[in-house]
Order: sequence, then C-alpha cells, then structure tokens
Amino acid sequence: MITCNVASLDEKIHTFGKFGDTGKGGITRFSLSPEALKARSEFQKRMEAIGAIVTTDDMANMYATVPGTEALPAVVSGSHLDSVRQGGNYDGVLGVLSAMEALETIVRQKVSHRHPFTALVWTNEEGARFEPAMMSSGVICNKFPKEKMLASIAKDQPGYTFGDALAASGFVGDEANRLSPDNACALIELHIEQGPVLEAEGYDIGVVDGVCGMINYEFTFVGQADHAGTTPMKYRKDALYAAVKAIQHLHDQLDQLDPALVYTTGKISAHPNIHTIIPDEVKVTLDARHYDPAVIQQVLAIIHAMPTEWVGCQMHYEEAWSRKSVAYDERLVTMVANSADALGYTKLQMHSGPGYEFL
Amino acid sequence: MITCNVASLDEKIHTFGKFGDTGKGGITRFSLSPEALKARSEFQKRMEAIGAIVTTDDMANMYATVPGTEALPAVVSGSHLDSVRQGGNYDGVLGVLSAMEALETIVRQKVSHRHPFTALVWTNEEGARFEPAMMSSGVICNKFPKEKMLASIAKDQPGYTFGDALAASGFVGDEANRLSPDNACALIELHIEQGPVLEAEGYDIGVVDGVCGMINYEFTFVGQADHAGTTPMKYRKDALYAAVKAIQHLHDQLDQLDPALVYTTGKISAHPNIHTIIPDEVKVTLDARHYDPAVIQQVLAIIHAMPTEWVGCQMHYEEAWSRKSVAYDERLVTMVANSADALGYTKLQMHSGPGYEFL
Repeated sequence: MITCNVASLDEKIHTFGKFGDTGKGGITRFSLSPEALKARSEFQKRMEAIGAIVTTDDMANMYATVPGTEALPAVVSGSHLDSVRQGGNYDGVLGVLSAMEALETIVRQKVSHRHPFTALVWTNEEGARFEPAMMSSGVICNKFPKEKMLASIAKDQPGYTFGDALAASGFVGDEANRLSPDNACALIELHIEQGPVLEAEGYDIGVVDGVCGMINYEFTFVGQADHAGTTPMKYRKDALYAAVKAIQHLHDQLDQLDPALVYTTGKISAHPNIHTIIPDEVKVTLDARHYDPAVIQQVLAIIHAMPTEWVGCQMHYEEAWSRKSVAYDERLVTMVANSADALGYTKLQMHSGPGYEFL
Repeated sequence: MITCNVASLDEKIHTFGKFGDTGKGGITRFSLSPEALKARSEFQKRMEAIGAIVTTDDMANMYATVPGTEALPAVVSGSHLDSVRQGGNYDGVLGVLSAMEALETIVRQKVSHRHPFTALVWTNEEGARFEPAMMSSGVICNKFPKEKMLASIAKDQPGYTFGDALAASGFVGDEANRLSPDNACALIELHIEQGPVLEAEGYDIGVVDGVCGMINYEFTFVGQADHAGTTPMKYRKDALYAAVKAIQHLHDQLDQLDPALVYTTGKISAHPNIHTIIPDEVKVTLDARHYDPAVIQQVLAIIHAMPTEWVGCQMHYEEAWSRKSVAYDERLVTMVANSADALGYTKLQMHSGPGYEFL
C-alpha cells in the first residue's frame, strides 16, 4: 500500500497555518486577501516543484495536475484555502494539503498512473468577505450567475467588489480550464468534521457517503399589537406565544421521526419587539436535513399538517430554499472505507450536513 | 348639577384635531413641533379669552389658572397635546380640552369656587421624537435629571436636542411655576382608554382608582452555537428552544394567578440569528402588571422558582425596572363614579395599566 509521509504533511500544515495566523488561536484568511494569495503562491510553488502543471480558471480556481500515462479525465482532490474570521487551522486547507501530499507521494515514489491527478483549490468557498459561500464552485456548476458574483461587495469595504479582488489577484485564468465532467472523473475531498460526532463517539475517520437533503422554511405568525399594560390576557393575540406553541409542536412531531433527522429554528424576529407591546408579527425559520428523501417528505407532511391558527394568531409559511440529497459514488466511498480499515483506523459511515455544489 | 356644553367640547376636538392631521386617519403632533406649538397657542389664546392666567414652567409645561375666592392650592386637570406618529385624535388632547371646557363652563356660568382651577398641558408626554416618554412630568417629579433630558437627541435629526427645541418654542417659563404639592391639591385627567376593555364589555366610563404595579425582567438563555447540518439533536444546546420552554412555563404558571394579571413577553433576540446556526444566546423580556402588590409578589416567586437550566442551556435573569402600584385619592375616585351615575353612564372601576409620574 502506498502511504503518504506524515512528517511532510505536518510541515505543510505548519507552514500554511502561518498564512493569516491571528496569533490568538484562529486563522483569518479571507479569499483573495494578501494572506490567501501567499497560500496560493505557496501551493503553486510547491506543485510546480514536483513538475505539476498549474492552471487557473476564470474564477481563479487553481488546478495542479500531474499527467497520467493516458489521455483520460483527471482524478481530482482538493478543497479551499480561504477561512472565516478566526477559523480553524484545518478547515478547508487540510483538503488542499492532503491533495498536495498525495501528488508529491505519487511523484516521489514514481507511482505509475493512467489518469492525471489534480490538486484543486476553490476560490471563496467560505464567503466570509464576499457573499455567497461556495461562490466559485457555484459559478462553474452554473448555480450562480458569474456577473452577479463579480459584483458582490466586500462586507468591510463599500464599493470594492469580488471582481476587483479577482482582477487584482493575479490568479485569473481561462474559462476553458474550469473543472468539468469532461476533464475530471472523480473528486475526493478530505475535510475536518464540522460537527461533534466523530470526537464524541470515538471514531477516527468519517466515511461520507453523500450529502443530506435539506429544506428551509420561514413561518410567519400574525397577531395584534396591543399595550402590555392595558390589554387583558383574554383579548390578546400574541404572535410570540403563537410561535412558542408552534416551535414546541414542531419539536414534538419531528422528534418522532428518524433520530438522524436534524432540524433547527435558528432565526427569530418579533415586531415591534418592544418590551411593553404585545408582538403582532413573529417570523421563525426551520431548517431540516436528512439523507433519506422519505424522511424529508415526512417533515414536509408535518409542516403541511400544522394548524394555521395558534392562540388566535394566523400562521403562514413559505419555502426559502431546499436541496435534494446527493449520493456519492459508491466506488469512492468504498475506497475510503477500505483504506481506513487497511490502516487500522476506526470509521463511521455518515452523511454530510453542510451544503456542497456538484458538477 | 353643573354640566359642560357638548357642542363646545366637540368644536374644540374638531379644531385641535386639525393640528397635525395627517389626512390619512391619524394625528402626528410631536412635542414642540410646529403643529404642537399651534395647539399650544390655541390653548393659550382660548384660556386668556376667559380671563385665565397662563404661565409656563422651565420645561414648558403650561398652566391656565382661573383664580378662586381664597388663597388655596389649585384643583388641576389636564393631559398632553403631543402625539405619537399617526396617533389617535383623542389621546391626551381630550384631557386638555375637557379641562379647558371645565374652566370655560365655570367662568361662563359664574360658578363660585374657593380653590383656583388650573388647566394643564404636559410637555413631551409621548416621547415620540425626544425620548423618554413622560419627560417633563418626570423632571418636575425628580424622576429624570433635567440636564439629561435637555440633551435628548431628536430621533429624526442628529445633533438637535430637546433643549434646542425647548429654547426655540417660546414657551419656556420659570422653574417656580412648576406644579407641586404646595400649589395644587388635586389632579384629574380624562383620558381615552388605551386598551379594549370598555368597548368590549360595553361600559361608557372607566373609573380609574389607581395604577398597576409593574415589573420588567430580562431572561437570558445561554446554549451553544453549532452548525444546523452537522450537529445531531442529542448534542445540541439550543438557546431558542430553551426560551420556548421557559416562556411556556411562564404562561402555565402565571395563568394560575389572578385573571387581572397581565404579562407580556414582548421582546426577543437570538444570537447569531442565522437560519443554519443553532442559537447560543436568546434574550426575552417579561413585563407583568397588577394592582395588588401581593399578586406581583406571586409573579416574583414564580420567576425565582424557575429552573436555571432548560434543555441543557443555562438561564439567568435580571430586573430591568419595576414600579409600585399607586392608589388614587378615594375622594376623587368617588366623585368620578358618582358623576357617571348621576349622568346615567355605565361605569367600570378599573386600574390603569400604563405608567404615570406622580408628584
């Protein structure tokens, strides 16, 4: 079995961890920032040093490719180098560094391979300075219109667009270089778990077999604004109390479904949101995710069956967005699982909760 | 029995209702605005026309006094001429106009009286442009520091203070003219009900015998922010769900107390308030009011007995403010009740929910 060099990967983690190190326990490496450009240059320098051909596409996504012995689509691995503010030292970058390590190992050990191998860097995956997240993968998957993305304004700099940052980066290449089903046959990403399961349950490796389907709804409760001091309880239409009742109802109902279902009421707003006024409008979001579309259908059935009136207030809702579940290629999933077994790591097959863009 | 002239009062309501009429079903007459100054001038002109002496104090509160036959403290009646944005046509102004009508009637009918009668206008009762509400009554009751009130900034005009508006009004008088227990022996205010009870229950007159005591608490629930997609339900500490449980608990407990208790959870905020993040901090206010201090004590006992942990989240709370209940002078309350009876109006003895400042 071909194995990578732990010391070599460790050195990469150490080196790349300096780009944007805040010195207080976090990495701030916004996409296309000076820190991120340093990380990109380091990626390019190291990949060119092993003879890889480094190209970029029109969204500055980077591809370092070691040719194979045949003219076949590439096996691709990678992730993102940008971070959120004071992000984790492994978030994203680990997927890039491990792809680099794999390519270096292949070259160093002169591993014969028919397919090209490509190490990939996505531009602006986090969306921390320029929204939205998953911007450049989204563009090449035709999920986001490119012109709209170029016009995205820096959160901290009025008038400065993502297009400006892109043009100034020196990493803009040709649209023809984009990753596509024509030039790639497989994509593998090593990513740190963004949840607590592996650590809490004592597993080394999560074998991700797909991405959960998700739905996002916004519920609105409409009551009547009245004065806190003059309105007897029996005359009230308290939209916040209506929301409380409905959230409890959702918990009671959704908790009866498959335990792997996750659902979140993360955002709430009340109007007029004054301590002496009974709220006349409350909005609450519901995010729900499960790998099995049948469970998502059960969630929808619960939503559709909800009463439209709660403690005298009217409720209505609308779908904000939804995403179908995606199954990863079984051959790749099996390879990951078998590799974990072969190396003696405990593994847990699991679904990914966060969203991804797919070609 | 001396009675006022309905047509005369009606004419006043019609005339004063033009000052600040938005033309779309509401009155906008912010304190010391051009519209409010017109109303003040009309008050002054009409009161001087019946021989009343009009003075103002240093907060521009206005006093129109018809002297009595003896050197005694005055019987005072009045309210405010300012309104909220698109306020009601009777809110406040009715108390001023009815005081004017009473003075006009006394003069017109040559009613002999030992005490002086004073019609009163409070400055900036609503606090709609310059916070806080009840500003000038609060200052002369020593509840608010005057210098701080003068520095209050207009909500719609950066840098323009209440002191600026006061100086420009032409209605600033001597501090010695302030209403006080030395120069006044009774204060009667006719006010439109700010709640739904009289209309809903078919009464003509509310005989207000005092002001409810009130408490205001802020509850904070502290959970843990985690990703909506990656955190199984069993690992969550959802601060919003904790707040939902606690609000339901408050309803369950408080609904067992006296039915005249009113309580309101009017304000809620969640952090980070993002639909894909489990909230790690939620704040909720509780306002509770009852005339009987014993019931307020029962409310406090329920608060103090609340669990400090809800669905894994810690709860703490603090008192934002409180106010003791106030009983009105029984002689005045009885006079109001007897007058309603004598004139054949149905009446309901009740407590006032909103706050007032008392000398």
